[in-house]
Amino acid sequence: MVINIGVVGYGYWGPNLVRNFAETPGANLVAVVDLDMEKLNVVKKRFPAVTVTTRFQDLLDNPSIHAIAIATPVNTHFDLGMAALRAGKHLWLEKPMTETSAEARALVDEAEKRGLVLLVDHTFIYTGAVRKMAEIIRSGDLGEVYYFDSTRVNLGLFQRDVSVISDLAVHDFAILDYLLGEHPTAITASGTNHFPGSPENLAYITLFYESGTIAHTNVSWLAPVKVRQILVGGSKKMITYDDLEPSEKIKVYDKGVNFTDDPAQIKEMRIGYRMGDMWAPKISGTEALRLEGEHFVDCILNSKVPETDGKLGLRVVELIEAATSSMRGKGETVYLNRQHGDRRLLGASRRQSNEGRLSVVRPG
Amino acid sequence: MVINIGVVGYGYWGPNLVRNFAETPGANLVAVVDLDMEKLNVVKKRFPAVTVTTRFQDLLDNPSIHAIAIATPVNTHFDLGMAALRAGKHLWLEKPMTETSAEARALVDEAEKRGLVLLVDHTFIYTGAVRKMAEIIRSGDLGEVYYFDSTRVNLGLFQRDVSVISDLAVHDFAILDYLLGEHPTAITASGTNHFPGSPENLAYITLFYESGTIAHTNVSWLAPVKVRQILVGGSKKMITYDDLEPSEKIKVYDKGVNFTDDPAQIKEMRIGYRMGDMWAPKISGTEALRLEGEHFVDCILNSKVPETDGKLGLRVVELIEAATSSMRGKGETVYLNRQHGDRRLLGASRRQSNEGRLSVVRPG
Amino acid sequence: MVINIGVVGYGYWGPNLVRNFAETPGANLVAVVDLDMEKLNVVKKRFPAVTVTTRFQDLLDNPSIHAIAIATPVNTHFDLGMAALRAGKHLWLEKPMTETSAEARALVDEAEKRGLVLLVDHTFIYTGAVRKMAEIIRSGDLGEVYYFDSTRVNLGLFQRDVSVISDLAVHDFAILDYLLGEHPTAITASGTNHFPGSPENLAYITLFYESGTIAHTNVSWLAPVKVRQILVGGSKKMITYDDLEPSEKIKVYDKGVNFTDDPAQIKEMRIGYRMGDMWAPKISGTEALRLEGEHFVDCILNSKVPETDGKLGLRVVELIEAATSSMRGKGETVYLNRQHGDRRLLGASRRQSNEGRLSVVRPG
Amino acid sequence: MVINIGVVGYGYWGPNLVRNFAETPGANLVAVVDLDMEKLNVVKKRFPAVTVTTRFQDLLDNPSIHAIAIATPVNTHFDLGMAALRAGKHLWLEKPMTETSAEARALVDEAEKRGLVLLVDHTFIYTGAVRKMAEIIRSGDLGEVYYFDSTRVNLGLFQRDVSVISDLAVHDFAILDYLLGEHPTAITASGTNHFPGSPENLAYITLFYESGTIAHTNVSWLAPVKVRQILVGGSKKMITYDDLEPSEKIKVYDKGVNFTDDPAQIKEMRIGYRMGDMWAPKISGTEALRLEGEHFVDCILNSKVPETDGKLGLRVVELIEAATSSMRGKGETVYLNRQHGDRRLLGASRRQSNEGRLSVVRPG
Repeated sequence: MVINIGVVGYGYWGPNLVRNFAETPGANLVAVVDLDMEKLNVVKKRFPAVTVTTRFQDLLDNPSIHAIAIATPVNTHFDLGMAALRAGKHLWLEKPMTETSAEARALVDEAEKRGLVLLVDHTFIYTGAVRKMAEIIRSGDLGEVYYFDSTRVNLGLFQRDVSVISDLAVHDFAILDYLLGEHPTAITASGTNHFPGSPENLAYITLFYESGTIAHTNVSWLAPVKVRQILVGGSKKMITYDDLEPSEKIKVYDKGVNFTDDPAQIKEMRIGYRMGDMWAPKISGTEALRLEGEHFVDCILNSKVPETDGKLGLRVVELIEAATSSMRGKGETVYLNRQHGDRRLLGASRRQSNEGRLSVVRPG
Repeated sequence: MVINIGVVGYGYWGPNLVRNFAETPGANLVAVVDLDMEKLNVVKKRFPAVTVTTRFQDLLDNPSIHAIAIATPVNTHFDLGMAALRAGKHLWLEKPMTETSAEARALVDEAEKRGLVLLVDHTFIYTGAVRKMAEIIRSGDLGEVYYFDSTRVNLGLFQRDVSVISDLAVHDFAILDYLLGEHPTAITASGTNHFPGSPENLAYITLFYESGTIAHTNVSWLAPVKVRQILVGGSKKMITYDDLEPSEKIKVYDKGVNFTDDPAQIKEMRIGYRMGDMWAPKISGTEALRLEGEHFVDCILNSKVPETDGKLGLRVVELIEAATSSMRGKGETVYLNRQHGDRRLLGASRRQSNEGRLSVVRPG
Repeated sequence: MVINIGVVGYGYWGPNLVRNFAETPGANLVAVVDLDMEKLNVVKKRFPAVTVTTRFQDLLDNPSIHAIAIATPVNTHFDLGMAALRAGKHLWLEKPMTETSAEARALVDEAEKRGLVLLVDHTFIYTGAVRKMAEIIRSGDLGEVYYFDSTRVNLGLFQRDVSVISDLAVHDFAILDYLLGEHPTAITASGTNHFPGSPENLAYITLFYESGTIAHTNVSWLAPVKVRQILVGGSKKMITYDDLEPSEKIKVYDKGVNFTDDPAQIKEMRIGYRMGDMWAPKISGTEALRLEGEHFVDCILNSKVPETDGKLGLRVVELIEAATSSMRGKGETVYLNRQHGDRRLLGASRRQSNEGRLSVVRPG
Repeated sequence: MVINIGVVGYGYWGPNLVRNFAETPGANLVAVVDLDMEKLNVVKKRFPAVTVTTRFQDLLDNPSIHAIAIATPVNTHFDLGMAALRAGKHLWLEKPMTETSAEARALVDEAEKRGLVLLVDHTFIYTGAVRKMAEIIRSGDLGEVYYFDSTRVNLGLFQRDVSVISDLAVHDFAILDYLLGEHPTAITASGTNHFPGSPENLAYITLFYESGTIAHTNVSWLAPVKVRQILVGGSKKMITYDDLEPSEKIKVYDKGVNFTDDPAQIKEMRIGYRMGDMWAPKISGTEALRLEGEHFVDCILNSKVPETDGKLGLRVVELIEAATSSMRGKGETVYLNRQHGDRRLLGASRRQSNEGRLSVVRPG
């Protein structure tokens, strides 16, 4: 069986989805929707067999379409996504999933109720580099995860209607969720907007986890150089991930800190250093979007839950909300109600799945 | 006239001071104090003409000694420094100046009262790289300073009795004070201690300034790789400073963001990008400590105020206090009373000198 | 007027030409030739309006076609190119132009006789980086060119029928010709083939110029890391060009060596060092192939001589021949008859154009 | 027993030897010779117990001195070294060993006849990085050594009386000898002198080995940036060695080229690529000179042959002679008589030791 897919939105990211679904085995790109006829003409020229239309409703009304992929501005995600689900279509949603966690939760519930696949396009989760990091962490090789530290900065592009948190930190939130399998209990963020009337263009966010892990991400649209670097420090090993490095993206350091009681070796200090080899594992070069497209088809055909399902998307939206709230409160800590936010089981997970609603609360 | 100098403490940093004063024109190293006779024997072997002693009092009692340099653990700085000043000696103090801002203030007052030179050894201020950055900022070439972003991480050395803020962030606090000539109005810090009973080994600190500048420093003793990197973004240009780069430490980017009203160029966005040349100015290679030693001698001989005087040292201690307070409050914002903390005039400074006491206050 | 173009060969490079001519203003891609019907089907799917055929003769017979671009294996370049010229078509030829300099000369002569444009696709000449280097050299800012030193290595792709000289050093030969406007007088090359029956996979080539410039290129298909780095040293300044650097490809160093007679400064040496600023000029980001395509159309429409004309292509083939001859003679110097090989005028060129034939001669 | 050592020459390198022997266990620095009294005063100040003298003969006449280390210009090495040996002193000679291979051979013979230790100070052989490379090669992990490719360039220092080959390529010659345990059969070199009357400041040297290994070194005093990089490619793995990298100097790549007959995988090519992990082994941080000093003492006390003995020093001088001869002949190949130049046994060496004299011959 072939999955017939309609794509909504042919702006910045849409063309990637269109090209991808046109080539994904098991997928059949049947229609593209955009409000701009010029863009649709481009699609028509490249893909003569594809139906182009300015009416989203055409997709809903078309019974041959199994799935809809939405790549429109975030403030339209909820309405379009809900309409798609209610029309019985499987749903691929760009990140961030929605503007509010309430909306995200409603989509999750709707998809669940109808037994439809809901995938949120956190593409990084399908990269060889992130999967290799997860593999190392889940195998226990890294030991206890002490910290996650990300720098994700460059010059532009300023977004008109979303802050740098929604644009850049969203990647770290998804990666953290995937790597740690744990939702933070508190978050604090600082940031600023150097241009009156624009959303924040620079932010520093710290996330605290019950397990003791601390995470931080530094995001900016105002840096002279592009940096995409993550450090993950564990009790046994440490990882660096440089996404701009063409060949050795992931480096695993056999370096760390040990407690010691040897009085000779470490005179007045209870801490010793371990300096060992470094190892850069080969990373799969398969394009993330290709992998993700095939995964979407597989989930639909075989009733599987996507690795980046609506619940992951929801948790990420919660973090955006909480970080934004803290940032606008000049760094006030925002506590995430840990009764809420259900978690998937992950490896030998220390957490059980639980249901509930996020409550973003301020202390005192 | 030659300045006779005694050095107290021959541990980690003391040997650098000893070597430096032994070679500084106008300075005469006459005595070294340490409690460890083995260390004093090393000094004696290398510098036969220098008096070595385990008694600090010997320095105070020696009328031929004009100045005392103190390189002992920070918890001894106040007592030793105050004794030196009261004995009429000019004072060179290692950073951080003292454990508390109250102590720092007392030393500032004592030195002022007695007309003695008080230099705090924030060595970075005497490096060619930091001075070049200051030159660019003060010339107006950078425009308005939007942000300062520092990463200062490595593996170890863990300190027994001070946190990573006192050990590493202290450098950024001094550099910020020197570059901006402005004291922050609020500070928020997150950090953690992965080893029970040890001080924090990792911290993220954000500083807010009245002018709109935002500063951030990321400090850690638990990173697999050493990083010493600062970005300074301005309205006209941007700087990167990589202290581990052997030749081009400072790079000035003619890149930035402009507001624009040209509808054609930037369709729905009021912001445009400027991408231009990069320029790496030649940096003076003079050793910072050498320059600082000569500056100390010059200040004593010619009654000058050191570039890193006690007031700068005090302001840095205030920041350490405030950051530590915020960090232990899991990121609670700490406001710095801007009536307090006097400022030197700096170029065409926008601030006037004012006197007073720091009051670290919590909101609400 | 629009130039109708047919492309021959849809293997490794052909798809780039097809895509490029399909988008070049003033060009009209009308036909694609390949022996492989599968490849032609791909073309047909992507460009439904383009005629596809396995018969090269169809292009020659089609009077509406003005120009033919040939991207087939090098051993077919001469026959296909000569047939195209004789059919009165303007010619775009992949590099290296031909297998032998005699063939290249015949094509040059044929095109000249018929007044047809002959462009050899040395794409590097159209990159912003190479043009910026040329600009700096021609302006005199670099001073006298002392040396050119290139490293161009990576792992694979091994070529079945050409050596690493034809595959990689060919780029340096073209860049050198463009930058220096001078043909070497002698060449020496070493290389080896680690796999019996395959062409050389690693070579070191030195070129000597009458002006005193020395050039060297290190090419290999057997390096673990990819390197694309050129140094150009002049009497006044020096350039580094790193093609893998995403943003600052070209760096200009105000460093160099001066003769001096100051006895104090440079005790027993007549040579002093100058260490100054570094400057990374902004490089045009226009795609080289796009620029080259527009240039080809412009040359045809306005009877201009391409920057990478057949004579440049010929000189490059001469260097491949000479280098290969030296390499197979284990480094024997091969002298290039400087009476031969005509040169274009280049800025305030020190050479006059001259005509003749290459004679590769061995000494004694 | 303690080895009493006298050092001759306190110029560029001498101070390192003096400091090193002053701290080497088992060594006792007793005297320093230099013609410059100012320099001797510096020594006296730093090392009051050491005898300083301008008369070399004093060392020879002193029966308590067991060994002499010579760090004077190369044109004095033979006379001073021979005098030291004839006075019955063990000998430490700076590199290059002598100006001519005949002189080097005479020193080797003299030391052998008298049973004295003769160590040539090729310090690189004692670095952790070079020893790690040797370990990997000798273990067979690298497979057959296909090539060795070194870049060793920087700006200055120009030498008054030796060319860049003696100054920089000398390191590669020693490292090659140590790594390969094989003497080349032919050598070809190109180079130039951009400053009339000075020795060559830039050279490209290729060495051919009977085993099929090809080696190349690119040395220059005229590069804007410092590079110290070596690639070693083997049939199983490949190594990069970047001496300026602070932490990961050696990287081992599980990459390479395989012959294959699989028609599906590599259509028309018999060669396939293997892309695997990279591994950066921990390198010993022991200072090379310290290790070398202790090795010298150990050789004297226990009648061992130094790892960098006179024979290695001689082979290196042979290569300098041959490369210089080729360079001045504009790249003419110089054949090294492989009957000559004895080789130490090295691991499971494929060569037997043989005796004889070098004969540098030009081809027919």
